[in-house]
Amino acid sequence: MPLLDEDRLFPVEGRARDLARALYDNVRDLPIISPHGHTDPRWYAEDEAFPDPAQLFVTPDHYVFRMLCSQGVELTDLGVPRVDGGPVETDGRRIWRLFASHYHLFRGTPSRMWLDHSFQHVFGIDRRLTAETADWYYDHIADCLARPEFRPRALFKRFGIEAIVTTEAATDDLRWHRMIRESDWDGRVITAYRPDGVIDPEMDGFAANVALMGQQTGFDTATWQGYLDAHRARRAYFKEFGATSSDHGHPSARTEDLPQAEAAALFQKALRGECSAEEADAFRGHMLTEMARMSLEDGLVMQIHPGSRRNHSGQVMAMFGRDKGFDIPGRTDYVTALRPLLNAVGMRSDLTVILFTLDETSYSRELAPLAGVYPCLRLGPAWWFYDSAEGMRRFREMTTETAGFYNTVGFNDDTRAFCSIPARHDVARRVDCAYLATLVATGRLAEDEAHELARDLTYELAKRAYRL
Amino acid sequence: MPLLDEDRLFPVEGRARDLARALYDNVRDLPIISPHGHTDPRWYAEDEAFPDPAQLFVTPDHYVFRMLCSQGVELTDLGVPRVDGGPVETDGRRIWRLFASHYHLFRGTPSRMWLDHSFQHVFGIDRRLTAETADWYYDHIADCLARPEFRPRALFKRFGIEAIVTTEAATDDLRWHRMIRESDWDGRVITAYRPDGVIDPEMDGFAANVALMGQQTGFDTATWQGYLDAHRARRAYFKEFGATSSDHGHPSARTEDLPQAEAAALFQKALRGECSAEEADAFRGHMLTEMARMSLEDGLVMQIHPGSRRNHSGQVMAMFGRDKGFDIPGRTDYVTALRPLLNAVGMRSDLTVILFTLDETSYSRELAPLAGVYPCLRLGPAWWFYDSAEGMRRFREMTTETAGFYNTVGFNDDTRAFCSIPARHDVARRVDCAYLATLVATGRLAEDEAHELARDLTYELAKRAYRL
Amino acid sequence: MPLLDEDRLFPVEGRARDLARALYDNVRDLPIISPHGHTDPRWYAEDEAFPDPAQLFVTPDHYVFRMLCSQGVELTDLGVPRVDGGPVETDGRRIWRLFASHYHLFRGTPSRMWLDHSFQHVFGIDRRLTAETADWYYDHIADCLARPEFRPRALFKRFGIEAIVTTEAATDDLRWHRMIRESDWDGRVITAYRPDGVIDPEMDGFAANVALMGQQTGFDTATWQGYLDAHRARRAYFKEFGATSSDHGHPSARTEDLPQAEAAALFQKALRGECSAEEADAFRGHMLTEMARMSLEDGLVMQIHPGSRRNHSGQVMAMFGRDKGFDIPGRTDYVTALRPLLNAVGMRSDLTVILFTLDETSYSRELAPLAGVYPCLRLGPAWWFYDSAEGMRRFREMTTETAGFYNTVGFNDDTRAFCSIPARHDVARRVDCAYLATLVATGRLAEDEAHELARDLTYELAKRAYRL
Repeated sequence: MPLLDEDRLFPVEGRARDLARALYDNVRDLPIISPHGHTDPRWYAEDEAFPDPAQLFVTPDHYVFRMLCSQGVELTDLGVPRVDGGPVETDGRRIWRLFASHYHLFRGTPSRMWLDHSFQHVFGIDRRLTAETADWYYDHIADCLARPEFRPRALFKRFGIEAIVTTEAATDDLRWHRMIRESDWDGRVITAYRPDGVIDPEMDGFAANVALMGQQTGFDTATWQGYLDAHRARRAYFKEFGATSSDHGHPSARTEDLPQAEAAALFQKALRGECSAEEADAFRGHMLTEMARMSLEDGLVMQIHPGSRRNHSGQVMAMFGRDKGFDIPGRTDYVTALRPLLNAVGMRSDLTVILFTLDETSYSRELAPLAGVYPCLRLGPAWWFYDSAEGMRRFREMTTETAGFYNTVGFNDDTRAFCSIPARHDVARRVDCAYLATLVATGRLAEDEAHELARDLTYELAKRAYRL
Repeated sequence: MPLLDEDRLFPVEGRARDLARALYDNVRDLPIISPHGHTDPRWYAEDEAFPDPAQLFVTPDHYVFRMLCSQGVELTDLGVPRVDGGPVETDGRRIWRLFASHYHLFRGTPSRMWLDHSFQHVFGIDRRLTAETADWYYDHIADCLARPEFRPRALFKRFGIEAIVTTEAATDDLRWHRMIRESDWDGRVITAYRPDGVIDPEMDGFAANVALMGQQTGFDTATWQGYLDAHRARRAYFKEFGATSSDHGHPSARTEDLPQAEAAALFQKALRGECSAEEADAFRGHMLTEMARMSLEDGLVMQIHPGSRRNHSGQVMAMFGRDKGFDIPGRTDYVTALRPLLNAVGMRSDLTVILFTLDETSYSRELAPLAGVYPCLRLGPAWWFYDSAEGMRRFREMTTETAGFYNTVGFNDDTRAFCSIPARHDVARRVDCAYLATLVATGRLAEDEAHELARDLTYELAKRAYRL
Repeated sequence: MPLLDEDRLFPVEGRARDLARALYDNVRDLPIISPHGHTDPRWYAEDEAFPDPAQLFVTPDHYVFRMLCSQGVELTDLGVPRVDGGPVETDGRRIWRLFASHYHLFRGTPSRMWLDHSFQHVFGIDRRLTAETADWYYDHIADCLARPEFRPRALFKRFGIEAIVTTEAATDDLRWHRMIRESDWDGRVITAYRPDGVIDPEMDGFAANVALMGQQTGFDTATWQGYLDAHRARRAYFKEFGATSSDHGHPSARTEDLPQAEAAALFQKALRGECSAEEADAFRGHMLTEMARMSLEDGLVMQIHPGSRRNHSGQVMAMFGRDKGFDIPGRTDYVTALRPLLNAVGMRSDLTVILFTLDETSYSRELAPLAGVYPCLRLGPAWWFYDSAEGMRRFREMTTETAGFYNTVGFNDDTRAFCSIPARHDVARRVDCAYLATLVATGRLAEDEAHELARDLTYELAKRAYRL
């Protein structure tokens, strides 16, 4: 018996379901455009086999290990590396068994659907993962991973990826991207400019990162002008490796448009590590406006991913470091926060700023009204914690009526979990088709328009918004 | 082929759909009560033909031009007048073509449904608006507008409007209302008292407006007592022209109940233009409580429309002025904000205060709990950005269980777009009938009660709440 | 004709409805676990007849009288006692008639469904309550109440209650619990430790309560150590009467983990009544962390019920006192607020902290992400104002995808209205089965898993989370 229902996520009522299926049939096999995510470019560069099932599905995926952690499973028992290099479980099979015996925890979650999709479609599995089937699963997946058709490049082709974007720090040397480029492989893997480490005075190593950017570019990044020029140079360098976008992960959506002298003074304080929390915040906010101005020069699309309260648990941060599932959303204001940037450049239709949120109360109250009037703004898809069937449905229900479909940008998978890419895009396509079918079935959209929109939401809008 | 589906907005499942249709059939032709809106009384007074299709549908409707603006269309190309009187497009046909070629942007939005409803029901059109049909549309609508049966008074009757309320500034001379009254036309067009311009110290011309109110009433509005008396006199004057309500559009729902000496002192500062932002806010808040007290004297129903961050774009404000689609909602607190007013007069059941919101997170958390206990409070319908099928559905789902139906007040169209009035009321009737049908189909309401409620929500509650 | 639809609250589409009914049929008759609520232990101790229909259904139930109040009915006319002992209506039949003539106000509310369920299932009534049937209803219910099978203990058994938890102040003598224990009745009625009165410096009688706790325990509660020891002793005393949980009703979810000397100093200020609002808040916050530490010692499960702005109307508070329906929710932050407690003890999987909310915007943004990673956290069910069909549906839709089902704890009725207990559990079972059926019908869950989950959500999770 297949793990997946062929009609999953479609409306339950017959006519709407038929409409959804017809819409989906026309887009299910469209190529995947993945304009934002966190897969490792090294995979595509080296094309090595993935090490083992636990390393593929459990240990690196915070969606998975955070749920196990929430029910008392120790991160060390899942092989999550410790900051101090202390002992953690290294036996993939033991980790896998622990995962399998807790698989019921994922009932009703998107992780369950992504995992089952990977098991069925990538590994051809037709039985459910349980404590009893754990070993069979482990052996089966491990056997597959040893075969050439399960190497990253082969899967990339099999997944139908037309283009995938990774995200690198501004100071990254892009060596894996260079290696891909210099190889004979024709997969389109491009980078995106993520300058948080040279923009956020509160990041560890800020001053060193800025100094490194100076060495990389030949500009004197001890000066404000040199620092801005170094950004320009690094953006140009990223563009050589295909970058069409920058990405900004800030604690809030605050922007500022300070007088240049004031910004320069803040920058000096930041270099000296003397910024107060408020000054650091102001500096980050001002730099978003500088980045927007540079986007008007070089055409990079700007993404803002605000609102994560990162590393919520001091204990976990101390023991395991960043990105361990303890990043928690918080209330995020956009209306006041974005005003300085929007007053500076918001009416420019040759600028594209894509907004994301971890606070879904902002969809209908703030984001849709803003994107529904400012020419530069577009809404990114339902993000983190909302990258799920219900989350995506609410995104459409709460944004479409005010901002329409054409101020949105299609789907991002935003994932580190390679095998989940087709699964996530499939969920998005199904949810969008279900939404469109419901509009048709309730007389809010004509059927021909729904077909056109299904293709737009799946493929065209992402290519257009990200200039791919 | 008709533009509209006969069963639009009804539930998709058969039995629930049948129930919704039966409910709707009983209320579809009830007269329209429009107790709050912004149509121009001059239309009804002069009964002139509307100038052209673009002037009817595009140029004055911020729902329409903000969407076009969001996709890079220039407001000047849509004929939106400039503050400096500089050149803008004046050729209605060119504006119309621009609009038509972007009509796909409105897919899935209420504007699309309102426009199609107007095209079909007001102008008898049965083909979709596209770049190709733009000229045909323009000619057809222009022809219609030249005919007497498309004059405002004729449409008023054809739309089945029993009563419509416009909104005038406290210092308005109500000349158009006088002209209507003195004419032989029997349409019921009444005014509402909107004193923001004489209450908000931060409004341009506040002191001049207050002085004008003094001239109009003979009271010395340089004094606090004279100012309050002038309000009383103007309210009485508005009542002569049928007013049954006042309306208050404040940045927040803040109320205050200050000692009279303190309020008087703030008023003096306000007249001198010396109020800090906080003092201006406190003064506005205090005046809401004064208005509520006057309502207890003269019986005017009080409407509070808080939470719009107006004129978000400085550039648009400078070039085009107010009300250009750049009013963005923000988070709005009611629980703390309304307490001073409610502690002063909230337990009075002879007072009616109707609350609106642009922050739908307040529906279930604040507004329904407040309206579900305070005798003076009622909930206005889903407002601006939520005046849509999904927005109205969420309003019912998030308020009914706590506040019931009888603490709501039926529908307001709140529109400046005359032809959209029947379209908007039709959407509201359909959404309410769909909601009631769902309650019946899921055993939460008896069918006879649903029929009674459908009539209440369509007609009775608005008349009762607004004392019409 | 029965008052209730057999298929109420199930999905409207046929296949999903059939699935829901099948799931429900397997759990409808499971025993009731009521792990949190406010029924009066005296009822079970004395087993006296309830006085009259109005005293059973109207006068003590703030869900009922707040709705009547919102439409202008005076609380005195409903027999709600006055603080000053002044006259109120005492004739049960007159109160009942007033209630009956306003019964239409409850259309679409959970109160209506709970009341109709009680009328049909407890009192065997098959006609609707109206002004016309009011007297018949009154006589019929009064007749029933006079019969032994309508005494509290008989109803307890008939309702199928396996265990019910009441809530008592830390200084309560638990006399009724003792009387139950010493009786020959085998109903399982246990207490819960609610120390707000000895933790909140802003509560009336705080210092006296603390002193009383000293007398009760023999510890010197004038000292910080003695105060903490007295808590330990009272918790142990409550455990003798079966307590497995503590309960904390704070204005916010703020926690603190202050140095002991600082906490001790705040405690001294609190005893002297000298705490500022901020200091009182900090003290309450710190005590939550102390309570969590004690839970690690004695195993009591900790419940946090934050966010009610109590006694919103000064007039009602002065005339009628607390708990009169004027407790209004407000925005509640959890992410920042809980961090001190979570940093202290949040990674302990032998601790259980159950979080509730009156601000449903926190479900998906804060509570599910927190409970989806911290081992100690669990989510309480949809609470107050959300203890309704739509409220419970939104709870599942907004928490399951991030936190799963197993970080939730089943249902709480949290009621003071005895007859509503089976009604409320029935609604919860139906809504959960409808949700599970929808997951199955949309391919998100296998049918066998849905059956297991239906039982978990109805019975197992509550027993496990509350250690019952």
